[in-house]
Order: sequence, then C-alpha cells, then structure tokens
Amino acid sequence: MFESAEIGHKTEKADYDEALPLLRTRLLDAQFDLLEQKGFAVVVLINGIDGAGKGETVNLLNAWMDPRHIEAWAFDVPSSEEAERPHMWRFWRALPPRGKVGILFGNWYTDPIRARMDRSSKRAELDQHLDAINRFEAMLVHEGVLLIKLWFHLSKKAQKLRLEALEGDPRTRWRVTDQDWRYYKLYERYREVAEHGLRRTSTGDAPWIIVDGTDPRYRALFVGRTLLDAIGRRLEAASGHWVTRQTSPPLPSVLDKRNYLNALDLDKPLGKKAYEEVLESLQGRLALLTRDEAFACRSLVLVFEGVDAAGKGGAIRRVTAAIDARRYRIIPIGAPSDEEQAKPYLWRFWRQLPRRGKVAIFDRSWYGRVLVERVEGLCSEADWMRAYAEINDFEDELVDAGAVVVKFWLAIDRDEQLARFKARESLPHKRFKITDEDWRNREKWDDYEQAVCDMIDRTSTETSPWTVVEANNKYFARIKVLRAICERLESALRY
Amino acid sequence: MFESAEIGHKTEKADYDEALPLLRTRLLDAQFDLLEQKGFAVVVLINGIDGAGKGETVNLLNAWMDPRHIEAWAFDVPSSEEAERPHMWRFWRALPPRGKVGILFGNWYTDPIRARMDRSSKRAELDQHLDAINRFEAMLVHEGVLLIKLWFHLSKKAQKLRLEALEGDPRTRWRVTDQDWRYYKLYERYREVAEHGLRRTSTGDAPWIIVDGTDPRYRALFVGRTLLDAIGRRLEAASGHWVTRQTSPPLPSVLDKRNYLNALDLDKPLGKKAYEEVLESLQGRLALLTRDEAFACRSLVLVFEGVDAAGKGGAIRRVTAAIDARRYRIIPIGAPSDEEQAKPYLWRFWRQLPRRGKVAIFDRSWYGRVLVERVEGLCSEADWMRAYAEINDFEDELVDAGAVVVKFWLAIDRDEQLARFKARESLPHKRFKITDEDWRNREKWDDYEQAVCDMIDRTSTETSPWTVVEANNKYFARIKVLRAICERLESALRY
Repeated sequence: MFESAEIGHKTEKADYDEALPLLRTRLLDAQFDLLEQKGFAVVVLINGIDGAGKGETVNLLNAWMDPRHIEAWAFDVPSSEEAERPHMWRFWRALPPRGKVGILFGNWYTDPIRARMDRSSKRAELDQHLDAINRFEAMLVHEGVLLIKLWFHLSKKAQKLRLEALEGDPRTRWRVTDQDWRYYKLYERYREVAEHGLRRTSTGDAPWIIVDGTDPRYRALFVGRTLLDAIGRRLEAASGHWVTRQTSPPLPSVLDKRNYLNALDLDKPLGKKAYEEVLESLQGRLALLTRDEAFACRSLVLVFEGVDAAGKGGAIRRVTAAIDARRYRIIPIGAPSDEEQAKPYLWRFWRQLPRRGKVAIFDRSWYGRVLVERVEGLCSEADWMRAYAEINDFEDELVDAGAVVVKFWLAIDRDEQLARFKARESLPHKRFKITDEDWRNREKWDDYEQAVCDMIDRTSTETSPWTVVEANNKYFARIKVLRAICERLESALRY
Repeated sequence: MFESAEIGHKTEKADYDEALPLLRTRLLDAQFDLLEQKGFAVVVLINGIDGAGKGETVNLLNAWMDPRHIEAWAFDVPSSEEAERPHMWRFWRALPPRGKVGILFGNWYTDPIRARMDRSSKRAELDQHLDAINRFEAMLVHEGVLLIKLWFHLSKKAQKLRLEALEGDPRTRWRVTDQDWRYYKLYERYREVAEHGLRRTSTGDAPWIIVDGTDPRYRALFVGRTLLDAIGRRLEAASGHWVTRQTSPPLPSVLDKRNYLNALDLDKPLGKKAYEEVLESLQGRLALLTRDEAFACRSLVLVFEGVDAAGKGGAIRRVTAAIDARRYRIIPIGAPSDEEQAKPYLWRFWRQLPRRGKVAIFDRSWYGRVLVERVEGLCSEADWMRAYAEINDFEDELVDAGAVVVKFWLAIDRDEQLARFKARESLPHKRFKITDEDWRNREKWDDYEQAVCDMIDRTSTETSPWTVVEANNKYFARIKVLRAICERLESALRY
C-alpha cells in the first residue's frame, strides 16, 4: 500500500502559494454546490501514523472551508454516554447530513488496529472486525454517503526525523510523548498491521487513499485536491442521469510528477561477461529448486508484466532454460477468447493454475484488468476499482493452497522503448513483434504509468509482493528476475 | 430463516398436473431467451438438509429444461486434479458461460458448514469463510452472474418421517445410511449452524431462498417457479435500459396461500378475570427485574410491530405500568423528520438507543424499511433487500453491547381489524385514531402479509428472535408480551 508514499514528494513554497488560492476557491464552490444539491453527505476518515500531519491537515481544512457546513470530530476515550451504548453509537452521532462534510479523526479503524498492535486481539478477530467494517461502509455507500478514507503515512526514517524535529523545537516539544517513541520502535509491526487492515478494507466503493505525510505543503495540496476531485465528480454524476448513482472517490494522481516508477534509476550496470557467469549459477540454483522434494507439494506462479519491448520474453526464456520442460507452461495472455469472454474475467486464469510440483508462467496476466482494460476503457471504472480487492483475494487463495506467487514489473523508460522499437523495425526476424498498436500504446505512456503505480500500491501484499525490475539493461533485468525467483522459492521451501 | 418453511406446504396432485405443463413451457422459453440474449449466466446453488429432495429436484430440472444448455455438477471428495489446486478451482471449472444455466449441487458452502458441524472449525473460522464467500459471490454478481441460492429444509419431524419412509421401501432402503441417522440426531446443531451461515451470507444481491422440502409436488413447483421468476425478471431488466443492470432473484411467494401468519390460530382464549390476575403478577416480576442490580449493566430494547389497531399501544401501556418512569422511554416512529431523512435510515434509531439500566420501547421501528417502505414503494427493492442483513448487523451490535432485544409482531386477522376500526369510529375519544390512510393500508393486506413473513424469516436470529403474538384477544396478547419480556430478561440476567 505504501510504495508510492515512501518515495518523498515535495512542493516548493512558491508553487504552494500559487496553487492555494484557486484550490480554496474551488473547495468553497464545491462545498456550496454540495449544500445546494443536498444529494449526499461527505465523510472524510483521517487515520494514519503519528507525526504524519493528521491534526494539521484537519486544521487546514477547517480554515479553508466554510466552517458552518463542515464538522470535525475527534474520538478519544469514550465518554460515559458513549461507553454505555454500542461501540458504533459515537460514530453514528457524528454522521453529517446530506449536503455537509464530516471529518472523523480517529474512528472505527482506530480500536481494531490498536488492539492488534498491542497483541490484545488475534488476527482472526481483527479480520472479523474488518469484515464488519466493510459491511458498515457498504451500507453507508448504499445510503449515498461519499466516503473518503485518508491514511497519512511516513517512512520510518521520515517519522524519526519528524519526531526529532518536534522535540528539538521548544514550542512543539510537548507534542512528543513516550508513547510516540514506543510506537516508533514498533514501526515495522505497525506498518504490517496497517497494511493488512488497509488492504482488507480497500474496496471498490471506498478505497483507501494514502497521503505522503513528509512534506506539509505537498500533503496539504494533495488532501485538498483529493477532496475537491471526489466531491466534484460525485456532484457531476448526480446531475447527469446517465451515470451511476454512486461514484467512489477517484484515485488521486501525484502533484509533483514524481511517482514510484520514475523515481527509480532504471540504468543498472551489468556487463555481458559478469551476466553470463551469474546467469549460469542462478539457473543451476533454480533447476535444483524445482527438482527439490519439497517443491512436489508446492507450485510456482510467475507473472510477467511490463510495457511493450520491456524484455518479458527474454527474461522468461532465461527462466525456462533452467526448468524441465515437463514441469512448466508459458501462458501468453492476449485478448480473451469468446469462451473466456462469456465468464467472469478471472476464469481464464483459474483454468490455467498449475498442479503441485508445476510452474505456470504468465506472460501478461490478470493485471490486464487494472492496466490495459483501465487505460483503454475496456471495462468501467467501477469494474477495475473493485478488481484490486478481487485480485488480492485470488492471490491469497493461491498462496493458501501452497503456491509461490512471484510478480515482476519490468520497467524501462520512454527513450529505451523507442530505441528498442526502432531496433525491432530494422531487424527482419523481429519486425513482426512491432505493430501499430504498440505505437498507439506509447502515446498513453503517462496513463499507463499512473495505472502501474496504483497497481503496485494496491496489490503488493505481504504474501505476494511485486518485484519491480529496472530493465533498461536486459542483463541486469534477467539476473534480478532469476535471483528473485530463487530467493522466494528458497524461503518457501525453508532452505 | 426457517419459520415459513416449517408450517407444511402441500400441493394436490390435480393442481400439480394442471400447473406443470405451463411451467415447463415457460421455463423452456426463458432458457431459450437467455441463450439468445447471452447477457448473463445463471448459477443455481443446491444446498440443505439430507432427505429434503435436493437430488430429485435437480433431476426434475434436468428433465424439464433443454439439457444442452443446463449443466449439473456434483462435488464430492476432490479428485487429485482438484486437490492439488486451490479450494475454489473446482467451482470455477463449473461456472457456466453467459446464456447458460449451471446447477451446483454441494458447493462452496458444503465444507465450511460441515467443518463447523463436526466442530473441526471454530465459530470465528466459519465466519472468516463466510465473509470470503460473500466477497466471492459479490464478485460473481458484479460480473453479471444471476445467483439463485436454494436451501432445502425439513423440520425435525418431517426429516424423521422421510428417513423412515425411505427405509421402509425396499426400492429406496439403500439410500439411507448410518451417516444420515447420525446427522438426524444432530438436527438442532445442524439447524443452528445452518441458520447462522445462511443469515451471514443472505445478502441483498444474493439472498438465500428456503425451500420447504416436505411435499415433493410443492417443492418441485416452488423451485421451478423461483427459477422462472428470477430468470424472467433479469431478462426483462436487461432489455430495458431504465432499470439497474443487476437484479437479485426476487423473494418467492408461497404457492398454496398458506403462510406463517395465516397458519396461526389467532383466537386464543383468556377471560378478563384470569387476565387481571396474571397481569398483576407479571407486572410485579417485570418491576423487580428492571430494578435488579444485574440490569444496571444491561439495557432493554422493545420493538412493537403490527398492523393498525393490532393493539400495540395497549400492550405498551401494560409494560410501562410496571417500570419506573425515569427508566423507560417510548419512541413512536412515524414519518422521518427532515433531519432524519438527511441521514442513513438507521440513524434515527441509533440516536434513540438506551444507556445501561434503561428501557427503550419502539412503537414501530427500523422494520418500517422492510414493511411500509417496501409495500408502498418508498425505497427501491435493492434497498429493502439489503436491509435484512443491515438490520441483523444492527441488532447484533445492540446485543454485543449488552442489550436485550425483544421484538413483537402483534398478529390480528382482517375481520378483527375491521371490527376494531368500526368500534373506533363510533367512540368519540378514539375517532382520531382512525384515518383514511388506515383504510388504504387495509387494501394492501396481502402485500403486507408477505412482507411480514419475509421479515420474520430473515430477521429472526439466534440472539434477537421475533415473538409472534396471537392478538385477536387483547388480554391474551398483553399477557404473552409481558411474559416474553420477563423470560428474556430472566435468562439474560441469569436467574
């Protein structure tokens, strides 16, 4: 969930000062339209890590918007009024009416996550809580509430810097408590519990939106823009009858052109000679692993995704070279057949799942739903929004059944793709590999990049994480792929 | 869940023979239209108690419909192909394409329910399974599958008769195994586990439909009619663009005019003198109970529902006469205020929840959603269909927080209502109690009756069951109400 929020976004003061007046005007306009139309209520959930600017952001929103029609609630220790009624009573009290905005700061997520942090609840209990929350939120959405769930995040390093900065300033020293440092020490656990909780409750109708809390200006603009987009789009949907009644908040795009992919250094050095040596040893390792006794009760599912000419085929060949041909199958995924189109979209992948002791290599995969189908408009936004959770469930089932799922995004940059396209065109035996469609896809580069970042954020899970491969250098890419497979297999087979 | 299925429905042979040819023709027509339109797939789940006619019904459906476009799958012990892949793989294999019907006989419900029956899984594990099933089925529905979930039920007595009949006939003796009798001995446990499972997975999009398995002819017509209605309605929805894309299978109505309410004997004898004696002693019991120390950490939520003039007010007065006025509040529920209308429909009830040691008496309640709002079309079918699960969740939260929830349906018949209306009109001080609207509601008596039966079936839960009160005799009704409250309170306070 946190990949994109940990690369460090920043907004300069000059940019902030320039963007702010317009943002505030538009937020006020949206608030006024909302009040006029009275079609739906807006509930903003504010959650996340300490020190990531939750309080400051709520203060800003209060200052920016008309305070008569926005109400912020903080939930601390329950009052006696609250403690004597069902748990959810205090939150029902705080629900805004249609036409207004309610900010719920510390809410129905706080207790279940804290209980799991403190190990006073078990994983199954947390999951039961989260499922109850899902049912509750689905009800809110059905009742017409626009639910915007914001999670404020900091990397461990950023949290440390932030706590130290607060402590170092006499005016803010009081804000840092022992509890804060205690939680900081539990950072990894907190991140893991939070990630699980967010993933489980990030639904198509009410997805979590992660706010990078590092830079106050970036964070403020990001939250303001997210609210504005969500409210604006919903107002628009309500005024036209041709759109569905409910729309979830749109996934926000970055404000500073910096994203998870373009923050990577794609040119990793590796010479041919070194490559060949390492290749051979890794292929040997992989060959042994797939012939290992322990692998007979497991299976291996490999997913290769990447833009055209990213080197998927080449990488796959280096993998298969190490495996007995009776053991693996390569499944190239193109347009679905008639038969496949007549079934739910995951059916074509379920039918290809490997038995124990076997390897299935998907050359493109179910991620087409949130990549090409999203960008090309081949399915509705509601369809691809719910797909993140569906895909996570699908991969959970694979892992529960003993499969090792390794997913690769082969990342090349625009120039490298152009060079490869041109090279392909000039080689007679590769010319068939380049089509008009490839050139057309290239024009949508930015849309694809956004889709890839969202995909990595929302489907890189504890049990089946994405491996992003810097692939401008093919040698480096192939080695990284093989090494990742070997390492994941070794840890699964308990070497 | 099983209330309506245990009253014993029956279809005479002559009626069956008359209805069958038309039903078969229409089913074939629907199947053909489905195939032409290719808009959606139909998945029929067949589950339920042994001996309730699951197999016979599948055989009939196969015989009635065009076998080229309907496929029945039975899932027994997994094959090695199946066992070596994720649990759900076998069911994905069986999914029908758009335009066809698949009957899944023993399916994703079988293992979780059986594991809980055998106590090899815990309640929390069962719930996790059920939530995963809910997510899976939501995905199917989003992908356009029409999901018809049939649960074949028998009362304990009916199951015994059925097993004995099979055993007594040399031609069918082989069908009864020791396992069947073993399960019969566990009937109560099975009923409880099944009821919980059904309730948890009966969603607005994919509700369970309970089939009374007692009479083979009734059961056959009921299932055929249910399929026909569901497919027909969905075909119609798909051909008009003004309706939502998905429609859930409609809740079926009974075929033999016999329902849970009209199967009751509403005239229970109780004379005035006996009434007054018992009344006094029950009121004394209730007074002590609400002043009991143990009640200080609990609360009491009473729900009174019934048609106009059913005697709700009179019953409530006999209850409140026994309680300290500082302890209770009567909450009459009429049309919602502006403020209430601007929030999710349950908000107006949440705001009225009692603190510990207090009593809230709802004169009409949240059940308005599935009664008046359903019958008068004040909310959409999708809204009231999802309300059953939402209301169950709501009451679960009350119970979890220590509330004792006692719900009454005061049942009178049509004639009794008429007599009471006329009596009211002739009494000056009661004339205000009868309005034109009351007369109008009376005309929709049958619709209300169906809505009440569905409500009782779908919201009478282990923790907050309905008490249906035969109320033609007011004395009897008031006593039954008071006694039920005392008994529920006594068991909650552990007398």
